Amino acid sequence: MKAEYINPFIESTINALKTMAMVSPKREKLQVKKDGESAMYDISGIIGLAGGVVGSVVLSFPKETAMKIVASFIGEDVPDVNKDVLDAIGELTNIVAGSAKKIFYEQGHHFKISLPNVVYGKDHKINRARDVPCISVTFSSDAGPFAIEVSLKEVQ
Amino acid sequence: MKAEYINPFIESTINALKTMAMVSPKREKLQVKKDGESAMYDISGIIGLAGGVVGSVVLSFPKETAMKIVASFIGEDVPDVNKDVLDAIGELTNIVAGSAKKIFYEQGHHFKISLPNVVYGKDHKINRARDVPCISVTFSSDAGPFAIEVSLKEVQ
Repeated sequence: MKAEYINPFIESTINALKTMAMVSPKREKLQVKKDGESAMYDISGIIGLAGGVVGSVVLSFPKETAMKIVASFIGEDVPDVNKDVLDAIGELTNIVAGSAKKIFYEQGHHFKISLPNVVYGKDHKINRARDVPCISVTFSSDAGPFAIEVSLKEVQ
Repeated sequence: MKAEYINPFIESTINALKTMAMVSPKREKLQVKKDGESAMYDISGIIGLAGGVVGSVVLSFPKETAMKIVASFIGEDVPDVNKDVLDAIGELTNIVAGSAKKIFYEQGHHFKISLPNVVYGKDHKINRARDVPCISVTFSSDAGPFAIEVSLKEVQ
């Protein structure tokens, strides 16, 4: 995975949160993961990428961050992590992946995206195959911290 | 989602487990999920489907079932849910999705598959959008129970 492949996802994440939820995230740490295993926050939206490049993008949030983002998105307080919150995190993941797809398309890389699955569970981990490079980026924001993880490889 | 769309995944799951791990699963309950939210077992392999149909397939296992399947697959005891177990569940998910893809192709439905993400966490749930139908199938086997969940829709 080329390092520059992460940039469309960073850009799309920042734009999507600004537009949808009036949250302005700041990029913090970028890390290349070699063992393919990651401890995630409480709620992780996952979308598969398939075509000229193949892989996945994960947006992962502590439940407090997710609730604040979704409250701002829907314009009212959310009492707990209910289905509206999980659906909104799925929709946000969909927007980020779809927006990154457009940027890749302009650069000559064509792929399609699947539908989002949103995992909800304290201390869940996500494992990927050892031969698929993964880049993790953490963000800070008014709504709290969150992270994205992108793993992809070009299809020969 | 047409009910017959589940059959290639059931067939591929049974074949993959027989071939890889000499485990012969028996299909138990088939259920259409309407709310999009599912409580999963401890370990869930997820692959996205994208193209003429779009969605995902999830194979979910209690950790005891996963360890027995992987022990049979690699031919030695596995002491715990280590990276080998998670990688093998990812590979199994990949084989099931790839094999189902071939069956769909022969029926005129073309899609590509992403790379597997394997979620590991007690009591994790997976949420999908309300407008995406999902079919859940449980299996029993010598290695213990497990389940598959397929959500997909045709792209207009």
